[in-house]
Amino acid sequence: MGLEGRFDEDAGVIRVGSDARQRYHDSRGYGYPLEGNEIALAPVEAAHLLYRGDLDAVVDSSGNRLNFRSFAAREPGERFGVRFLVYADLRSRGFYLSPAAEPWIDAPPEGPTDFAVFPRGKGPGDGEIEHALRVISERTDVPATDLEDGVLAVVDEESEITYFDVSPRDPTGSSNPDSSLPNNCEADLLTDRVIVWEPPRDLYEATFYGQPLEGREYEEPTLQCSLLEATYLAERDAIDLEVETLRARGEAVEGERFGRRLAVYTELREREIVPKTGYKFGADFRTYADVESVENLGHSELLIRVHPDDHVFEPRDLALDVRLAHGVRKTMVFALVDDGEIEWWSLERLTP
Amino acid sequence: MGLEGRFDEDAGVIRVGSDARQRYHDSRGYGYPLEGNEIALAPVEAAHLLYRGDLDAVVDSSGNRLNFRSFAAREPGERFGVRFLVYADLRSRGFYLSPAAEPWIDAPPEGPTDFAVFPRGKGPGDGEIEHALRVISERTDVPATDLEDGVLAVVDEESEITYFDVSPRDPTGSSNPDSSLPNNCEADLLTDRVIVWEPPRDLYEATFYGQPLEGREYEEPTLQCSLLEATYLAERDAIDLEVETLRARGEAVEGERFGRRLAVYTELREREIVPKTGYKFGADFRTYADVESVENLGHSELLIRVHPDDHVFEPRDLALDVRLAHGVRKTMVFALVDDGEIEWWSLERLTP
Repeated sequence: MGLEGRFDEDAGVIRVGSDARQRYHDSRGYGYPLEGNEIALAPVEAAHLLYRGDLDAVVDSSGNRLNFRSFAAREPGERFGVRFLVYADLRSRGFYLSPAAEPWIDAPPEGPTDFAVFPRGKGPGDGEIEHALRVISERTDVPATDLEDGVLAVVDEESEITYFDVSPRDPTGSSNPDSSLPNNCEADLLTDRVIVWEPPRDLYEATFYGQPLEGREYEEPTLQCSLLEATYLAERDAIDLEVETLRARGEAVEGERFGRRLAVYTELREREIVPKTGYKFGADFRTYADVESVENLGHSELLIRVHPDDHVFEPRDLALDVRLAHGVRKTMVFALVDDGEIEWWSLERLTP
Repeated sequence: MGLEGRFDEDAGVIRVGSDARQRYHDSRGYGYPLEGNEIALAPVEAAHLLYRGDLDAVVDSSGNRLNFRSFAAREPGERFGVRFLVYADLRSRGFYLSPAAEPWIDAPPEGPTDFAVFPRGKGPGDGEIEHALRVISERTDVPATDLEDGVLAVVDEESEITYFDVSPRDPTGSSNPDSSLPNNCEADLLTDRVIVWEPPRDLYEATFYGQPLEGREYEEPTLQCSLLEATYLAERDAIDLEVETLRARGEAVEGERFGRRLAVYTELREREIVPKTGYKFGADFRTYADVESVENLGHSELLIRVHPDDHVFEPRDLALDVRLAHGVRKTMVFALVDDGEIEWWSLERLTP
């Protein structure tokens, strides 16, 4: 026979007596213990027990007996629906999870976190948290400043759930450094790209700047470079164009985005990672961490999208980027730029 | 021995005499014939012959002898660079192509077209055009109103080229029609989704509305529906919620986008195609043309993104959408909505 809960509206919890502690808390990780055998459940926990038929009803302060339908309809918070769906999904996958708050758990994770998910086979009393989980709807914007190390669960309009592992990232590489750049190669600026006329082969073949112009016999290949590559090379006196002219052209064709992308390009090169355009993947860059020669180029590891640090993500755009990166076996990384300071965050699909 | 061209600056063409007609036009499809053996070349054609070393120089009206580098630096139009790159790329793939204008070709294609590309093995005199080709840089915005049946070549910042086949589309299907919808099923609106309590099984299993709530024993499954599905069902009296309430909620959470998406959802259903959310692919819908039962659901064929008809595309976003769709073996379709009138366009990657 099932039990009934009593809605303690002041505390925002549902209290259940009798053998609830043993039945729901100790053996299945719901709620937190009160005195005796009584426990307190968060609304999402009570809803789940109602939904499963484990709890017969919740009685509110006016004496109404609520079933799952009337309990769900009564819960006012706009996030109750999406939080319930994620709670139920993780339970059905065999995880125990608690609201990320005391007294459900000690030392809750910081930041905007909804649930603490415990390692498989563990519960709230074991002192270990596998994932700090934040739940949003696909219509909830995510300010870049809110990104936290943890898991983001996005519930789409048809109530399917995607989990993203969000992590700070510190990209490093061992590509050939720039110590061997040439000196003042002849170059022409053509609208929004640059031609470098017959530079030393290593500029392309060892350090992977530019793309050779095809279809012509040559001793040394003539290279087409992007404005970013050209500005970076001009700053190091490797080509004979004025840095200011190139920067001005970049800003004319891309606006503020150019400066942000140049900051990211530069920091990647300084970390001995080679950035090349990510256009075909809809990103700013794809990156190669360990270029020794273009002839033996490995797979590019990261796709990088550059944003200002006050950017606000739409979950649908995140889904698109992460899905595409996954499909081409790369990791999606967001570079958030604030006055030249860069924060790096990776987002990857997670199957709990 | 090579020939020299003479820049006719008034006409904007380069005239080449001697045996140029036989050598460049008749056998290799460059330019158009003038009197005698003389031909006229567009700047992009002359540049290509200079680049290949087939033409020794172009002499301008001041008597300067221009080589490829000085000719390219002199060409002022900001689109010369990207047009040249595409021209050279298609030539290197074995195609002949001409400026999409008289007198290079008769009856040039309409709209913003740069080149007429002839079928492999054919030239300008054969009266057949394989592709009407438009060239843009990845930084060129594309207004939706400019989409034309043809090929769009996008040159990225590192001068690599992506070709998109752009076609009007007329999606049709043979999924189970709505004739058997139930009558006024009980349903609750929960923030931005709807629960339909134990409707007839066919609502899900034959016509593929909603998703069953998992993890509970049931006779008839309880369905979660999106606001779009629920509004559509309420308009047909299949669920007992007010249409106006649902529309208002949709507009509250999505703004104007909701009305556009509902127009597209409705037209797809009327065409006997089942739209489901495309969130996981970053799109509005994925579609199933031939649903007989959910149990034997085939692969979804299209990804659909909905835009107002005055939308302006960024090529990078197009690259992202089309790449992702291709990776999951679907076709990317854009639905452009103007007061309920919908235009459908597909974009697919093309390897010439």
